[in-house]
Amino acid sequence: MSELHPRGVFCAAVTPLTADLSPDHAQFVVHARRLLAEGCDGIALLGTTGEANSFSTGERMALLEVAVAAGIAPERLLPGTGVAALTETVALTRHALSLGVATVVMLPPFYYKGVTEDGLFASYAEVVQRVDDPRLRVVLYHIPQFSAVPIPFAVIERLRAAFPGTFAGIKDSSGDFANMTALVERFPGFAVLAGADPLMLPLLQKGGAGCITATSNLVAADLAFVFRHFADPDRAAEVEAAQARVVVARNRVSRFAQIGSIRTLLGERYGEPGWRRQRPPLVPLSAEESAALLAG
Amino acid sequence: MSELHPRGVFCAAVTPLTADLSPDHAQFVVHARRLLAEGCDGIALLGTTGEANSFSTGERMALLEVAVAAGIAPERLLPGTGVAALTETVALTRHALSLGVATVVMLPPFYYKGVTEDGLFASYAEVVQRVDDPRLRVVLYHIPQFSAVPIPFAVIERLRAAFPGTFAGIKDSSGDFANMTALVERFPGFAVLAGADPLMLPLLQKGGAGCITATSNLVAADLAFVFRHFADPDRAAEVEAAQARVVVARNRVSRFAQIGSIRTLLGERYGEPGWRRQRPPLVPLSAEESAALLAG
Repeated sequence: MSELHPRGVFCAAVTPLTADLSPDHAQFVVHARRLLAEGCDGIALLGTTGEANSFSTGERMALLEVAVAAGIAPERLLPGTGVAALTETVALTRHALSLGVATVVMLPPFYYKGVTEDGLFASYAEVVQRVDDPRLRVVLYHIPQFSAVPIPFAVIERLRAAFPGTFAGIKDSSGDFANMTALVERFPGFAVLAGADPLMLPLLQKGGAGCITATSNLVAADLAFVFRHFADPDRAAEVEAAQARVVVARNRVSRFAQIGSIRTLLGERYGEPGWRRQRPPLVPLSAEESAALLAG
Repeated sequence: MSELHPRGVFCAAVTPLTADLSPDHAQFVVHARRLLAEGCDGIALLGTTGEANSFSTGERMALLEVAVAAGIAPERLLPGTGVAALTETVALTRHALSLGVATVVMLPPFYYKGVTEDGLFASYAEVVQRVDDPRLRVVLYHIPQFSAVPIPFAVIERLRAAFPGTFAGIKDSSGDFANMTALVERFPGFAVLAGADPLMLPLLQKGGAGCITATSNLVAADLAFVFRHFADPDRAAEVEAAQARVVVARNRVSRFAQIGSIRTLLGERYGEPGWRRQRPPLVPLSAEESAALLAG
């Protein structure tokens, strides 16, 4: 499995916000460095948890530039670059490559629903052709509960055949473990990454590549431990204990809105008010929800 | 009802494309002028039918600039300015106002699903506050089959109370006539516009304000006739005949993909290949579908 790329624990990083609800660059860099220090293999910034689709193209580019300028190795950054507009997906992807960031996580265009397989294939194909950079590695982003545009196996097959090496993997955030294992079986050499923290361990045992997850904002060290030692019989008890803590953390942030819950806990842990802020349409947990979460 | 604004027949204009799938400015202006000459009260450009969400912010701004520069009166232009990212919705709306275009059609932010009423209210409120221009008039855009973010009555009520005069109307593309009539009854002075051509007539009879529709790309004159004469008993037979043609046209473009069907018929009528092109994720009708449509 060592040829899988990307492989490891990637944190779908929360984006701290300033008082005017702009990305807080300084706090973001602090958080990204902390996550790497805790054992993350990389930072999947500007994803669903990072509220990227609530930011403009310029705001997204600026955040990635700041991360690179702060000295975070470009190969540890997996930015989301897939948006509704073809030409903006191209611009964001080219921009990442211009910074040396070659692996991106790409949503399908998510405004039109019920698009055909030809249309979905054409979307990704047109992006790759327009970007026209052999360094590009795309992680498809399957999250039908938000995109409402699932990525069918037939489209993955066509993309991998048409652009060998480019479509490197998939982040499967459907929560459907059968879909993840079917992807592993159907596409050898394709990096299947769990989008839900508790599913990384069973997916690794089936040949998966790791995870891109939200709860890793809180429990990166445990996830990293599970990833590094899941196959080591001498560490089985420790792996089991770390996995149990991951499950507890995930359950804890699933009682109320997940992103708001993770933000509340990060705010409590690190003190900065920017962790709790959210840009509409998302809103912070209510005072009652926060109190119940923190008491839990 | 004369105080309703906007009021009339507004065409959700198709965007012709050049060979590289960019908006064809020259052909767009030709089409917009033709629609106004056929009797449309205005052009609702850059909507779902216009594939706006497949264009970048810059492409959207350029198309609106071209329409204004071509001499189309700004008060006849109703551009879509609502996108997923708050700051881009603000930028697009400010840009429209900078051109003298004060009435915009605004989707809710459409990436996150299941957003709270507080979050949806905050999205629109934050846009209005950031734009900060008393000229602004917002037509809410309710199209749950694509946005997957419906606009509840409670949110409309809060927005109208918080920003008197700003939230002028709604384009209801749900196809749910009961929802449209309930909107008319619940919100006096609120311009309810049908998103489906055949429903404009019955909605007008209930106090609606008109329509913003796709089939008007093909049958603007008939829709305009229905709008102007629906209450005139001396023209009842002509209104009935025009409405029947509208229904036939709508049924004709509903057999295959609607936007592709309208594009095929426009391409057949006007000859330019740019009518049939589509930007992914949408794709043109297949040759077989086109042939069946044109034979019909």
